[in-house]
Amino acid sequence: MKTEVINDLLGYEGLKIIQRPDIFNFSLDSTLLAAFVTINNSDKKIIDLGTGNAPIPIFLTLRTKAKIYGIEIQEEIYDLARRSVELNNLQEQITIINADAREIHKILGVSSFDVVTVNPPYFPYVETSNINKNDYLTIARHEVCFNLDEVLLTSRRLLKDGGTLAMVHRAERMMDILETFRKYSIEPKRIRFVYPKQNSTEALAILIEGKKSKKKGSLKILKPLYVYNTKGKYTKEILSIFNYQGK
Amino acid sequence: MKTEVINDLLGYEGLKIIQRPDIFNFSLDSTLLAAFVTINNSDKKIIDLGTGNAPIPIFLTLRTKAKIYGIEIQEEIYDLARRSVELNNLQEQITIINADAREIHKILGVSSFDVVTVNPPYFPYVETSNINKNDYLTIARHEVCFNLDEVLLTSRRLLKDGGTLAMVHRAERMMDILETFRKYSIEPKRIRFVYPKQNSTEALAILIEGKKSKKKGSLKILKPLYVYNTKGKYTKEILSIFNYQGK
Repeated sequence: MKTEVINDLLGYEGLKIIQRPDIFNFSLDSTLLAAFVTINNSDKKIIDLGTGNAPIPIFLTLRTKAKIYGIEIQEEIYDLARRSVELNNLQEQITIINADAREIHKILGVSSFDVVTVNPPYFPYVETSNINKNDYLTIARHEVCFNLDEVLLTSRRLLKDGGTLAMVHRAERMMDILETFRKYSIEPKRIRFVYPKQNSTEALAILIEGKKSKKKGSLKILKPLYVYNTKGKYTKEILSIFNYQGK
Repeated sequence: MKTEVINDLLGYEGLKIIQRPDIFNFSLDSTLLAAFVTINNSDKKIIDLGTGNAPIPIFLTLRTKAKIYGIEIQEEIYDLARRSVELNNLQEQITIINADAREIHKILGVSSFDVVTVNPPYFPYVETSNINKNDYLTIARHEVCFNLDEVLLTSRRLLKDGGTLAMVHRAERMMDILETFRKYSIEPKRIRFVYPKQNSTEALAILIEGKKSKKKGSLKILKPLYVYNTKGKYTKEILSIFNYQGK
C-alpha cells in the first residue's frame, strides 16, 4: 500500500514536500543542515548526496540561485523527490538524479561543485545484525551503500578546491567524522552541536562544515543549537528556521 | 620586585593560594578542569602536570582522598605551589615537585597513575616570533617546554591502563588535540565546551577527558558551560564551582 502525504516543508514560503511514511519522511536534521551550510553569492553548483525526498535542495532554493543537484539511489524515494520538486515548480533550479552517489562524479564531473551537502546514514552496518539490507529505511539509516569513508571520498571528488562540505551526523561519532574529514583533506572549519532540549546533558547531532584544502587551520565551535526549550516547545531559533524567509 | 598576594582559591572552603601577579596567577580554566575531571573512589594516585601555583591539586583535595602530585618546571612558581600547599596544611595529601614533566616518569614510575590532569601551554611556539623563551609567562603559555605531543606522550607513560587524562585547552585547537589523543591511544570519552557568555557565538575553551585504551569508543559531547550570563554576572554553575563543598 502506497500512502503518500503532502506536507509543508517550511512555514511562510508555502514549500511542500511529498512524503511516504511507510518508506521515507525527511527529518529535522536535514532542515538544520540546509540552514547551517555556508552559501556564497558566487556559488554556481551545489549537490546534495542521498537527498531522500529532497528537503535540502528545496530549502536551499530560499538561500541561493545556484543550480542544485539531488542524488538518490532508491528509485521509489527518488520518485518522491522528483515530484516534490515539480510540486514546487522548482525543476529549473533543481535536478534530481536516480543514481549511486559513489558513481555520480562519472556523470557530473570531478572538481565541479562549490558545495556538497549530505545527511548520510548514521549507523554502522554490521553484516551479522538482524537487519534487512534491502529495506528502504535500512539503506537510509545504516551504512549499507554509503559509509563515512565513501561519503568523504565522494565529496572530495565532487568539490572544487576550496569548496565546502556540510554534513549532519550523530555527535557520538565525532571522532570518526573528524578523522575521515582529515583523511580526505577536507579541513573542518565550523562545528555546531544540536541538543534536543535546553537542559539536555548531551548533544545528539553534530553539524559540521569543512573546506577542501590540504592546509590545516583553526576551527570554530559555534554556539549550541537547542531544538526544544525547557517547556518542551520549539525554541525561537528553530521556529525562525521553519519560517525561513530567504533573508 | 616580588609582589606576592594571598587569594581565596574557592569560597566556603577557605582554601587559599599564593599568587605573584608579575609571574603567575592561576586561571579560571584550572578551576573548571578540577571540577570537570572524573574522580573515582578507587583512585589512589593523581598527577597534575605543569601545576603552576597548584590550584588543581588544592581544589581536588575537596573531591578525593587520593595522593596528588603537582609537577612544576619553573623554580619560582614551584615555590609558590609548595607554600600554597603548606598554607592550606595539605602537605600530607599533596606533593609538589620541581621537575620537567617530560622526565617525571623516571622518578615516579610508569603506568602508576589513575588520573592525569593538565592545563598545558595553549599557543604554539614559533622560533622566529618575538617571544622571550625564558620568560615565566612564555613558558606557561607557549609550547616551549611542553608541546601537545609531549603532553600526550607523558600522560600515556604515567597512566595505568584504563586511567583518565583530563585536559583544558583552546577550543580552536580541537583537531590537533583529538589527533594527538588518538596518536597516543588515549581515547576521548567526554568533551565539554566553555563559552565566555550565554550569548557567545563561539566556544573559547574545551574540557576533554580520555581513557588510556587502544579500544575506540563513543564520545559524549556534554552540555555547554557558560561562564557569564547575558547580564555579565557569573552563571549559577560557575558560582557553585567556586563555592564547591565537596559533594
